[in-house]
Amino acid sequence: MLPVLADSVRLADDGVHILDRRDYPFSREWVRCRTVEEVAAAIEEMVTQSSGPYFATLWAMVLAAREAAAVDPAAARTELDRAGARLMATRRTNNHLRKAVHAVLCAVDSVGSVTGDELVAAALAGARAGDERYRARSRALGEYTAELLPERGSVLTHCWADLYLVEVVLAAQRTGKRLAFVCTETRPYLQGARLTADTLAELGVDTTLITDGMGAAILASGDVHTLITAGDRVTMDGHVVNKVGTLGLAIAAHTFDVPFHAMVQAPDRQAPTAADVPFEDRPGDEVLHTLGRRTASDRVRGRYLAFDITPPRFVTSVVTDRGAFHPEKLADYYADDHAGEEQDQ
Amino acid sequence: MLPVLADSVRLADDGVHILDRRDYPFSREWVRCRTVEEVAAAIEEMVTQSSGPYFATLWAMVLAAREAAAVDPAAARTELDRAGARLMATRRTNNHLRKAVHAVLCAVDSVGSVTGDELVAAALAGARAGDERYRARSRALGEYTAELLPERGSVLTHCWADLYLVEVVLAAQRTGKRLAFVCTETRPYLQGARLTADTLAELGVDTTLITDGMGAAILASGDVHTLITAGDRVTMDGHVVNKVGTLGLAIAAHTFDVPFHAMVQAPDRQAPTAADVPFEDRPGDEVLHTLGRRTASDRVRGRYLAFDITPPRFVTSVVTDRGAFHPEKLADYYADDHAGEEQDQ
Repeated sequence: MLPVLADSVRLADDGVHILDRRDYPFSREWVRCRTVEEVAAAIEEMVTQSSGPYFATLWAMVLAAREAAAVDPAAARTELDRAGARLMATRRTNNHLRKAVHAVLCAVDSVGSVTGDELVAAALAGARAGDERYRARSRALGEYTAELLPERGSVLTHCWADLYLVEVVLAAQRTGKRLAFVCTETRPYLQGARLTADTLAELGVDTTLITDGMGAAILASGDVHTLITAGDRVTMDGHVVNKVGTLGLAIAAHTFDVPFHAMVQAPDRQAPTAADVPFEDRPGDEVLHTLGRRTASDRVRGRYLAFDITPPRFVTSVVTDRGAFHPEKLADYYADDHAGEEQDQ
Repeated sequence: MLPVLADSVRLADDGVHILDRRDYPFSREWVRCRTVEEVAAAIEEMVTQSSGPYFATLWAMVLAAREAAAVDPAAARTELDRAGARLMATRRTNNHLRKAVHAVLCAVDSVGSVTGDELVAAALAGARAGDERYRARSRALGEYTAELLPERGSVLTHCWADLYLVEVVLAAQRTGKRLAFVCTETRPYLQGARLTADTLAELGVDTTLITDGMGAAILASGDVHTLITAGDRVTMDGHVVNKVGTLGLAIAAHTFDVPFHAMVQAPDRQAPTAADVPFEDRPGDEVLHTLGRRTASDRVRGRYLAFDITPPRFVTSVVTDRGAFHPEKLADYYADDHAGEEQDQ
């Protein structure tokens, strides 16, 4: 029942298998990564993206445990740290990778000094728990987001919000809401044209594709009623860091009185404000190509700002696994937490 | 000295030759149109765009005169009207085509009832005058626009402003301004990535390409100092109708205090407000492809809003061949006109 992309990173005996999103849905090739390093390289090369690197990192940490199974517990733990650092360095703007590494390391540490099969079993248990927790939190977030959508209407989305979007659609369908979606193509990787458009169709949703430049026009037209996107990271003071293009859509939505809901499992306590978020620089050359073909003049250079920062004044709400919050009230997310049981570390 | 695209529609003995902009600069093929109908079809099929259809229409009206040279003056005049109507119907949002047809018909009417070589000569004189006038007005507009740009700085532009942009650059170079340009790729036809980027490079301008979704981020960054675009049409109350994407950039520029200057030879007295502008619907299928390749999921439909409307509150100035005007003071453009000598009919 789940769409293809919701189960597109898998652990196998010979490594981690990752569905290649770079040419999906035109081709459906799986990249087989036998080592932590191969998983890290696949993430850097955009074989998978959005939620994909989170799952890839969970399973890569199990590979790391397998690789370290033969050495003593202290050396193994050092190897796991090294693997985690390598994986976290692949893409820095989203903080899912930190959480994936943390999930596995905590599980390993909780069983004391182990090696061999016990180490692998502990890592696997941690990765599975991380997988389940991510899916459960996405489901909760999807349900809270669906509550904010109209009974009937059209929703604009940008890039590919992956499990968050899938769960929004499933929740809306469960509650009988009839929504159409408009998605932006999201250059240069065309995540919207390929991943979002195809998955929405897979889910039976009426879907229309526009180019990235058409967002303001369609927001001005009255033809869409809500804007929703993921947030790669949301700072405690309500800045939404997400795929470049989100800012322009959010400003236009604000201008034309269309609500904008940003989805993130939790605001990031390690990022009080946007200055605390590391921004990934991607090669400018990626802007000059489309699916491998040069589509710009040979005489120009490209610049790839991969993310932008939407200030809280353009955000209607930040929807988390604990409900929707005003962007200036994100501290409330943690209001009921007690020391030691914080979910979002 | 002029860049290739500034001389890319030509009259020849066998018809009108039009440089095909759909794959330029990757290929440099000329489409040979032997009849008015072939020119009209070429405009509809986007063989040329921006200023191109204006020149193509001028020369197509000469073809119409050649086609009508054998019949009596009244029948010939009817044929010219019919040709003009066909050409004006090709693309309706920009009103250059109306002016091109008008330029030739006025020249024909001014010589009285003629046929044969006299008819063709009159049409040719009208077309040549229209060509010269368009270039002279673009030059004036370019000079006024260049005056508004900083001595040193970076200018963001969208789509392909054709002769207006060329004249801005030449004027800036004449006066010693050192400008870098940032251009958006402008999906789905990639006019920015191909035509603007290549022509700016041809003119020796430092040029960086971004995707359409990056405009707001770069405007927020402080890295660009001015936004300039053409206006396909500017209404008397200051609405700028232009290539879709302009609205989003203009709103973002306004938000981040970057001035936006829209270039048009003259505001349109036939369009008191945006409701008076006919909007062209282009096939949604064009959004699903990039340079002929399908780049979207097979399961989605596209929607192509080709133009958007930027309200005057987001426009710093409208720059015309008579100087820059506040968008709410466009009536001043015509303040010194006397009946019978209006330039912009």
